[in-house]
Amino acid sequence: MEQLEGKICIEAALKARARKISLIIIRSGLHAEQIQPILDEAEQQHIAIKYTSRTELDAMAHGKTHGGVIALATPKPPVSWEAILEQIKNQSRPPALLLLEGVDDSQNFGFTLRSAEAMGIDAVLLKKHLWDFDGAAVSRASSGAFERMPIALIDQVNKALPRFKNHGLKLFGCIANAKRTIYEVDLTAPVILAIGGEKRGLSAAVRDHCDVFIKIPMATAIGSLSLSHSASIAVAEMMRQRIFRARSDFPQ
Amino acid sequence: MEQLEGKICIEAALKARARKISLIIIRSGLHAEQIQPILDEAEQQHIAIKYTSRTELDAMAHGKTHGGVIALATPKPPVSWEAILEQIKNQSRPPALLLLEGVDDSQNFGFTLRSAEAMGIDAVLLKKHLWDFDGAAVSRASSGAFERMPIALIDQVNKALPRFKNHGLKLFGCIANAKRTIYEVDLTAPVILAIGGEKRGLSAAVRDHCDVFIKIPMATAIGSLSLSHSASIAVAEMMRQRIFRARSDFPQ
Repeated sequence: MEQLEGKICIEAALKARARKISLIIIRSGLHAEQIQPILDEAEQQHIAIKYTSRTELDAMAHGKTHGGVIALATPKPPVSWEAILEQIKNQSRPPALLLLEGVDDSQNFGFTLRSAEAMGIDAVLLKKHLWDFDGAAVSRASSGAFERMPIALIDQVNKALPRFKNHGLKLFGCIANAKRTIYEVDLTAPVILAIGGEKRGLSAAVRDHCDVFIKIPMATAIGSLSLSHSASIAVAEMMRQRIFRARSDFPQ
Repeated sequence: MEQLEGKICIEAALKARARKISLIIIRSGLHAEQIQPILDEAEQQHIAIKYTSRTELDAMAHGKTHGGVIALATPKPPVSWEAILEQIKNQSRPPALLLLEGVDDSQNFGFTLRSAEAMGIDAVLLKKHLWDFDGAAVSRASSGAFERMPIALIDQVNKALPRFKNHGLKLFGCIANAKRTIYEVDLTAPVILAIGGEKRGLSAAVRDHCDVFIKIPMATAIGSLSLSHSASIAVAEMMRQRIFRARSDFPQ
């Protein structure tokens, strides 16, 4: 079981219905209107609610930002990459996926999902590795985006990536020494944006499948960006291009 | 005193020379080539170095990412906004400042500084508030950018902001419900980008001075961005415009 904390995460988890929530614990005296969406969903889904004191809730909570609500839930199950392939086949706008590699921190992962969702990423492919993420911490950092975003763990990139590419998605690999910048490629067509961890970047296995390498230009040789900020800037640029393309005054 | 941890922060602090460093503690057996820049700077600045065991260093460290090096240093002194005004008067390229308000978390602040530096922000104006940040934690999250970036704490925006504006800087306020997007304004001229905290946004005091309000367009009504990710996307857009303007094929 995972312990979700905070109204935003719990409401997102309830609405997404990917997890099974067994119990919601609420601080006695919390104004009903603050948690009405949670109470409504819980009633619809027949989820038990328990009221408890501030002291007891604080003692149960892992973090400080629970805001008076905690839920016990099964981990969010990953979807298969085949399911994501089906999902994007059926959508009208050009698909946009994010492929992440070398993520080793729940908060970073959560932040990345939050920005990805805000910028219109349809699903996230996470290269499987040793790191076992804490779904509750990811959810909190993602401000609930983790609950809504389809996420597939990819074991063998050699099997999955060609299938996406066969379906017309172009794989852009973000690497530090690429010749072209994110501003010089067309991100309005179906894309997978691949972003690697800060320490090792993208693996050879992923690089081998990349159609184009791109970089985020920086002002100085000293500066650097974290994975979640690199990802945010890249997905925001994708969205910028799509907005202007849609307006048909796209400058390329 | 603040305890700096990790090679990147400590090397940055040594080179920036804004703090007074009284002692550097290094794990015995650490390969000299890994810390040569630190040893060289310490020698030049006559800073004492102490070698200690892994166990002792681990016990002293606040975090887990010290990598075998800890330094004791005075807090980094803020610069005055008047000094920042002087600084930008003397630079050839159009100044770019970031005004932050409602930052209440060391990590968020550090991340923001890191992206700001990478995207060519010259200095940061931080609206003074109750939060007393932990310089060592900010430095760690910023990957050393905190050591290099001039940061002024602003007490009275009514006094400081008109002075910057009189000097030709245009103040852009990022707010959720602005009509224009960051992509529809000219960020190549001298600018201050003002970004507020997630909870309250920009204060009325800052809004009153804004020349233009802008927003980062998002894909969905559900999504949101953290302060550091909003800031990163905005400063990256500023840099994109400046790159293309410099190439004189800027599409506006």
